[in-house]
Amino acid sequence: MPDPSSLGALYARLKALARSQLDSEGVSNLIAEITSASHDFLGRSAEVVELRSLVSGKQYFSFRLDNLSRPINSALYIPDRAEMQARLQLVAAGHLGHLQSAEATRTLYTMAMAFCAAIDSSKHGDKKTPATYFEILIGHVLAVHLGVTPTNSIEVLSGDLKGGTLPTDFIFDLGPQQTKIHLPVKLSTRERAIQVWAHQRIVDGIYGAGRYKGVLVVLAETKLDKNRLEVVEICLPDQWKVYQMYVAQLARIYYFDVPARYAELVNGYPKIDVKPFGQFFSEAERL
Amino acid sequence: MPDPSSLGALYARLKALARSQLDSEGVSNLIAEITSASHDFLGRSAEVVELRSLVSGKQYFSFRLDNLSRPINSALYIPDRAEMQARLQLVAAGHLGHLQSAEATRTLYTMAMAFCAAIDSSKHGDKKTPATYFEILIGHVLAVHLGVTPTNSIEVLSGDLKGGTLPTDFIFDLGPQQTKIHLPVKLSTRERAIQVWAHQRIVDGIYGAGRYKGVLVVLAETKLDKNRLEVVEICLPDQWKVYQMYVAQLARIYYFDVPARYAELVNGYPKIDVKPFGQFFSEAERL
Repeated sequence: MPDPSSLGALYARLKALARSQLDSEGVSNLIAEITSASHDFLGRSAEVVELRSLVSGKQYFSFRLDNLSRPINSALYIPDRAEMQARLQLVAAGHLGHLQSAEATRTLYTMAMAFCAAIDSSKHGDKKTPATYFEILIGHVLAVHLGVTPTNSIEVLSGDLKGGTLPTDFIFDLGPQQTKIHLPVKLSTRERAIQVWAHQRIVDGIYGAGRYKGVLVVLAETKLDKNRLEVVEICLPDQWKVYQMYVAQLARIYYFDVPARYAELVNGYPKIDVKPFGQFFSEAERL
Repeated sequence: MPDPSSLGALYARLKALARSQLDSEGVSNLIAEITSASHDFLGRSAEVVELRSLVSGKQYFSFRLDNLSRPINSALYIPDRAEMQARLQLVAAGHLGHLQSAEATRTLYTMAMAFCAAIDSSKHGDKKTPATYFEILIGHVLAVHLGVTPTNSIEVLSGDLKGGTLPTDFIFDLGPQQTKIHLPVKLSTRERAIQVWAHQRIVDGIYGAGRYKGVLVVLAETKLDKNRLEVVEICLPDQWKVYQMYVAQLARIYYFDVPARYAELVNGYPKIDVKPFGQFFSEAERL
């Protein structure tokens, strides 16, 4: 039976390989293995704790072992082992885009959550491992789908720093006269969202407004009160509007667990287009 | 003898009073009392641990009780009880500006560090209390010096959010046709510095570039390796240059423990004017 220590070893191999070959079959296999091991481990060893959801229309649970995991959306997590195995084969074949949008979202949500919850519930306070894993997972899936390996820096074109590079989130460059994407990946944004808009402003400043489309990918905005077992969503839509008006324009924000208050932002001014992640596969080229 | 629990009670009173009367004599007295209690407590009860400084030209030590405190610059901390009492009387009389610039810096550094180190060394992992205390200390000293109580929000002037307010760092408004200052306060900036430039961009966007001068106040950029007892400074001058070129312009950055690599930025392009905090008192009106 897989346990947290074997998960740790798999994760260490994934991290090392992803650094040089993010779009490789090796990374694909390791992600499938980690998902499968985490999913099995939680299904067999962890207790399922129903949570009191204060988020309208959504139900949440946590896995509990030594600790309580982050909240998991019941409508998005796929608990069945055989079903997840079948989906992992699709992913490994690079056919995630063949799934209907909502099912692609659920598949990747489960892949991300299984590992995050396994780490959360068995190890105290390790926030970095889930965040790095989620970044690798999204980077890999997008690299395979777009057929382009992202970089993590851009060149500074003018001034006294000319020729130097600036560390960035993922940069996907589809080639001359094609879409270029500046893509930060976060487990949640909370009070750190302004960083994303500020980085977009820098990319716009160096390369011209709109040349690199700003696309933010986020897992969820849930927060768990571990004593009351209550789940809330932390959303700051008015602050986002100010960022979109005065700092830079993001072309799209994809969530796995979409907060309703952010999804509404597409209907107002300034427009912020917030969608479930699965829709990326059908619109990536039109961003 | 004062102990951490009585410090906690004093801090709770300070926090409550500062919310409504930041520039009051009551706040002034509480800050003096907290400094005095922390300073005594550390001097009598804590062990002094010399640290190995990897920062050229600077020596550091920590106080140790249950835990090791953050690193303290030996040239800036005033250990003598009688000397600190005399300086606290100056501060209470609103005469901090009468000290020479370097001595004003040392006095406030000691006031900030005594409380931070008392919390660090006696309580594990409480990061919020020192940060809030430092914000209140700086806000109070500037409010008394400038004769203006700061606010923590600005009005949005146009768009669909018109009339709404945006939460900000300190805003000091010296009146019509006078200097207005947007002033964030941080214990350290690390990877969060971009937030400060982004907030300045929003204020510039709403009120016009340069109407509110951006002034950042920071305690230090030191980092302690608790196993090796080594101190380093975390500085990212090239990233700061990019922020100053592409996000917004900060008029001044004041440090208590100035990193040499940041102080050099005043000589290059883009110019970033980094100075010891004590110089604020002689140039506040010319910002």
